[in-house]
Amino acid sequence: MKVIVIGGVAAGPKVAAKVVRLNPEADVTLIEKGEFLSYAGCGLPYYISGVVKEQSELMETPTGVVRDAAFFQKVKDFKVLNHTTATAVDSDSKTVTVVSKDGSESVLEYDKLVFATGATEIRPPFPGVELDNIFCLKGIEDAEAIKNKLANKNALDVVIVGGGLIGVEVAEALIEMGCRVTIVELLPQIMTIVDPEMAAMVKKYFESKGVKILTETKVESFAGDKVVEKVITDKGEIAADMVIMSIGVRPNIALAKDAGVEIGETGAIKVNQQMQTSNPDIYAAGDCAEKTNIVTGKAAYVPLGSTANKEGRVAANNICGVSDSFTGILGSAVCRIFDFSVARTGLGEKQAKDLGYDVVTCLAPAPDKPHFMPEARPLMLKLIADRKTRKLLGAQAVGMGDGDKRINVAAVALSAGMTVDQVAQLDLCYAPPFSPAVDNILTAANVMRNKIDGNMEGVNSAYVKEKIDNNADVTLLDVRGPAELEMIPPLKGAINIPLGALRNKLDALDKSKEIIAYCKISLRGYEAALILRNAGFENVKVMDGGVLMYPYPRG
Amino acid sequence: MKVIVIGGVAAGPKVAAKVVRLNPEADVTLIEKGEFLSYAGCGLPYYISGVVKEQSELMETPTGVVRDAAFFQKVKDFKVLNHTTATAVDSDSKTVTVVSKDGSESVLEYDKLVFATGATEIRPPFPGVELDNIFCLKGIEDAEAIKNKLANKNALDVVIVGGGLIGVEVAEALIEMGCRVTIVELLPQIMTIVDPEMAAMVKKYFESKGVKILTETKVESFAGDKVVEKVITDKGEIAADMVIMSIGVRPNIALAKDAGVEIGETGAIKVNQQMQTSNPDIYAAGDCAEKTNIVTGKAAYVPLGSTANKEGRVAANNICGVSDSFTGILGSAVCRIFDFSVARTGLGEKQAKDLGYDVVTCLAPAPDKPHFMPEARPLMLKLIADRKTRKLLGAQAVGMGDGDKRINVAAVALSAGMTVDQVAQLDLCYAPPFSPAVDNILTAANVMRNKIDGNMEGVNSAYVKEKIDNNADVTLLDVRGPAELEMIPPLKGAINIPLGALRNKLDALDKSKEIIAYCKISLRGYEAALILRNAGFENVKVMDGGVLMYPYPRG
Repeated sequence: MKVIVIGGVAAGPKVAAKVVRLNPEADVTLIEKGEFLSYAGCGLPYYISGVVKEQSELMETPTGVVRDAAFFQKVKDFKVLNHTTATAVDSDSKTVTVVSKDGSESVLEYDKLVFATGATEIRPPFPGVELDNIFCLKGIEDAEAIKNKLANKNALDVVIVGGGLIGVEVAEALIEMGCRVTIVELLPQIMTIVDPEMAAMVKKYFESKGVKILTETKVESFAGDKVVEKVITDKGEIAADMVIMSIGVRPNIALAKDAGVEIGETGAIKVNQQMQTSNPDIYAAGDCAEKTNIVTGKAAYVPLGSTANKEGRVAANNICGVSDSFTGILGSAVCRIFDFSVARTGLGEKQAKDLGYDVVTCLAPAPDKPHFMPEARPLMLKLIADRKTRKLLGAQAVGMGDGDKRINVAAVALSAGMTVDQVAQLDLCYAPPFSPAVDNILTAANVMRNKIDGNMEGVNSAYVKEKIDNNADVTLLDVRGPAELEMIPPLKGAINIPLGALRNKLDALDKSKEIIAYCKISLRGYEAALILRNAGFENVKVMDGGVLMYPYPRG
Repeated sequence: MKVIVIGGVAAGPKVAAKVVRLNPEADVTLIEKGEFLSYAGCGLPYYISGVVKEQSELMETPTGVVRDAAFFQKVKDFKVLNHTTATAVDSDSKTVTVVSKDGSESVLEYDKLVFATGATEIRPPFPGVELDNIFCLKGIEDAEAIKNKLANKNALDVVIVGGGLIGVEVAEALIEMGCRVTIVELLPQIMTIVDPEMAAMVKKYFESKGVKILTETKVESFAGDKVVEKVITDKGEIAADMVIMSIGVRPNIALAKDAGVEIGETGAIKVNQQMQTSNPDIYAAGDCAEKTNIVTGKAAYVPLGSTANKEGRVAANNICGVSDSFTGILGSAVCRIFDFSVARTGLGEKQAKDLGYDVVTCLAPAPDKPHFMPEARPLMLKLIADRKTRKLLGAQAVGMGDGDKRINVAAVALSAGMTVDQVAQLDLCYAPPFSPAVDNILTAANVMRNKIDGNMEGVNSAYVKEKIDNNADVTLLDVRGPAELEMIPPLKGAINIPLGALRNKLDALDKSKEIIAYCKISLRGYEAALILRNAGFENVKVMDGGVLMYPYPRG
């Protein structure tokens, strides 16, 4: 059996190695157009910042062996043609035309073909985009070029176009190296992996680290004399010694189109659960292949190295006649920015609403360990659920606390289709150095249950901000203690009655008005709302997440 | 509705507060025999070591309000009688007799009664157990007494009887304070929350921190003049200025017996999923109540604060007519010892075998983050699965890496009844500061799939040790590179052929012999075994976990 794999970064080497392990008689050839094989692309920001010292570390096995062509041949027993470009696929004759480094062309035959062609960064044709010192960050070559520029100068002005995952990771790396960094984002928020109120917390933290963030700002062109000097946007000009574009990536599908295989609605190669394309002898895996969202059952395009590996294994199994299926993805993602982490899985609030779910959300900020442990750090969780089925739909975390641990729990729960009631009873590991006795994600699930059960009506911070901005006739009730008010001031116009005193001060409140109760995290806000409801107040709401998650200026 | 709750530490206050929230008309009284309410018992080792500075921190809300009787009355709106002992329950007349601090007796009526009486440390009647400076560590009073003794002297000799969770946490605290610590354990291993080979890794690490560990050692008596001076065991005497007994706890069930409710096979109060005892007006929650193991469906006794809280909520809901069920526990647990963590969930290997499962296990040691990230730390995972159903049965983690994160993932998977194939495809959060592209738990699941699919026959380190000890006619094949052999020497008698050279050196190996291949973690050991099997070798095994998880001396 002749197997040709096109693409040598993540999914490709996985498919090739696994095919040989399952079927040592197979004749497997991997084609890679660049120099580098099987490198850790996600490590590039850490190579730029110097956390990762040597380029080679990104290409080594954990025991320090570089994964080059010789390694794969000797250890994994498949052939690697790097510096070789696949230029055409003929699916009738089952051949791939390749051009090697020296320009010579040859035609290779296959029984099974695998597209692991990856994705390419989007590089919009802004005027001036050809100027020097404008980079993308996709491969090791890009990282080297950026590093070289940084080595020559101190405190460069760098503009990052695009506030997504790679953009913010690079921003951190550049700040660590003493650059002045501006992120320019076309959308109203950076970090669209999380919902707006969560992204607002990230923005606030990021700005405290000296990163300038311009949202709803459109890049129009780059200007400079050979070398970029400024970025011209619809809101003005920004000085720039360097520009890094991280707008996103597009799947590499040209060869697949050439082979006549079907392209999916997301623009990536359509595959079934066996990673087969519309042509049963042709597979696709990794960033070039379309995914299925487990929660919605719909096509999605979320290119990630972690998914590439799983898909590679499934493709290899099926190529070798071992039945295997890849069920899909949840869009789980995480990123660290300085001491802050941002993580998510499943559906966001808007996405869930657009899909027609009866969406309920909740916010649950709390220390990620018992408050008496010195290493406890604040963590803000958001859950998204369906009121009708009580099923969890998505989860998001931001903060200095351990967020990915909780989001991973949510990811498994989503894969299993759990209700928030089931999540609230999960038996997670507990000891003070690791988590509170009731883990943050269980607390969040309990808040959600209270909301779905009608024990509590929550409103978000944007709702409250609008009331304040419009001087609306509403009572904001802050039930925190006096010392807390000094730490974080109350919202504009709020009445302060500490929770313990509330039962004796009900006369101070107007029953005819809408009352919005809150505290630091709105647990006591919830208790206050219950007291008021029991006392006959009819229009009582709770501000989700409390003052801790109110991201706007106090005004 | 009159509700009486007996016990004020974890489950009790939860039940009382939740009942009042759901039903503000309810007349709720909580009875606590001690002074302290709702304190974080699990924080006591950290109070002893000084990580937690003030006793009051263990009793405060996150915003610094001490949870005393006045707090509960004012904020939570229920009555607290502390320093009050419930001495009798009459379930016919539905009354509880209580004796208050001043010795006065009164009789309280209830409509619903909740036992949240907790558990008491086991204190075997060793001769000399009444001597001074012999402690248990259950309540704040114990912690204070231990702290006082430690404050007076430096470098005490302390003997800890029992190598379970509390024992090792206290051992760490004492080492941090300069004590010389010996743990005496009756069983062949400490830390029975994990399997023997995992416990052996913990023991090795613990000893490197200066803790002396004596297993299979039976305490016979304590000797001294008023104050303990030595511990006499069946293996000799140990000098001791202080003894801390942490043998385990027993549920407090005397009152429940008095009330005529059924006691379960584990010796704890039998409850249904609504936390009702055999008497429908009497509930039990927390450490006094029996649990159900979700994996086995059988009764279990695992007293933990995290479970108490969930049970308290369920009891309160049902008392108030809101239908709710507690489905059970997995025995999830974690503990930190210095920089090492030990975590588990589900069934252990022996437990699974005893229950009749067709048990397959695997070990997967690996860095907990990509090896190129400086903060990567080694993490050793063990999975236990059922060959027939391919379902995960249990998971364990030891090492300096993030173990609880992976064990929590396993816990959710166990709750959902997932197969190892499903676990291998979970979409977990990935970025280099958090995990490898293929997370450790997914890698472990893939190793398990390889084993169940017959791609690999694994043997454990104890099997290999026996072969070495008996000079058995077996080939130990070490496929690591030369530099690695210097870091961790090969096993006694092993032949070294680096994996890359193996295909050309097959003649050096005897086909008639049993061959056990291994490397650092046995991924390359697995690849070597495949190469040998494909070359016609018939008796090839892989040592699970590689040299990294071989806990015995090299001999």
